Amino acid sequence: MVTVPRWPEDSRSRLVDAAMSLFGEHGYSGTTVDEIAARAGVTARTFFRHFADKEEVLFADDDTLLPGLLASIAAAPGPIAADALMLHALTTLAAVMQPQRPALVARQRIIDTDVSLTGRELAKQARWQQGVTATLIERGFDPDEAEILSAIGFAIFVRALHAWLADDDGPDLADRIRDALPRARTVLDAVSAR
Amino acid sequence: MVTVPRWPEDSRSRLVDAAMSLFGEHGYSGTTVDEIAARAGVTARTFFRHFADKEEVLFADDDTLLPGLLASIAAAPGPIAADALMLHALTTLAAVMQPQRPALVARQRIIDTDVSLTGRELAKQARWQQGVTATLIERGFDPDEAEILSAIGFAIFVRALHAWLADDDGPDLADRIRDALPRARTVLDAVSAR
Repeated sequence: MVTVPRWPEDSRSRLVDAAMSLFGEHGYSGTTVDEIAARAGVTARTFFRHFADKEEVLFADDDTLLPGLLASIAAAPGPIAADALMLHALTTLAAVMQPQRPALVARQRIIDTDVSLTGRELAKQARWQQGVTATLIERGFDPDEAEILSAIGFAIFVRALHAWLADDDGPDLADRIRDALPRARTVLDAVSAR
Repeated sequence: MVTVPRWPEDSRSRLVDAAMSLFGEHGYSGTTVDEIAARAGVTARTFFRHFADKEEVLFADDDTLLPGLLASIAAAPGPIAADALMLHALTTLAAVMQPQRPALVARQRIIDTDVSLTGRELAKQARWQQGVTATLIERGFDPDEAEILSAIGFAIFVRALHAWLADDDGPDLADRIRDALPRARTVLDAVSAR
């Protein structure tokens, strides 16, 4: 007998929670859509109303995170210097992600163990970077500048994100970004050790 | 009757040439592996000795370009400043690509028309960027610096590459990179137009 969901409007987030629990218990490849649906108390048909496949569950947040990032870039009062805009946008994104740390740690562990998921994550980052570049151009940055700015911003963010996910007791994600940003100013003068 | 190849050792490059011609004539999706093999004067079995599938033909150069890039970073005499190393590595890569411009223009046109090929190209760039970061760390750059440097280098290179591919009469790829690199020094101070 299929359990009737008590909060049908919340089935998407319960499916995500169920999937992450099962991935942790049985591994990503050892978990089926039917098991995820059963754990969430919905039918497989409901699963497929929210996600095209099991992989999509791991990328569910992208539907809100990327639009939020682009909106924070577009809405910051201007004219604004690139470094201030970058700090504003990345720390805004960090504030959204900070409370989700346990789920993000679990997600990263799964992404890192599956080469096709890793590839999708990299492609996603590249698409995000293109979206940020386009939004910076809309704000009136030169296209060459926009592309370099977006690349610097992503490099700082991804590095801070991975350090934050790997360190259970360290600084918040936003503080890591604040600490890392000045390095982008001096990095071209760095000298290799050999 | 299958044509016997005159230069069997050269069948890989003839397959690439045949594929690019056919993609130009009939489109990427309108071309089959059998047609590529026939045009190259080899069997489909020979095709599959060189490439896993049709898509692989478009990424055939990666087997030489990425190792060449990483070797040019690893082999530059040091200690060396990051900007000088970046200029050396990117202009070395540009010199290899410059004579291949017609084939690269045709390739880019195909990549741009197919969303799964575009995704693979983005994932490839992300993998290359990771490889460059690792090589910079091996040379003794701080990991944070290495990640930002790699991101800046790729942003400059990809932007110069696309401008070069789109402009039949403009400067060489290496000159475009030389012109763009100084901008990375001042980009964080750029101010948005609005």
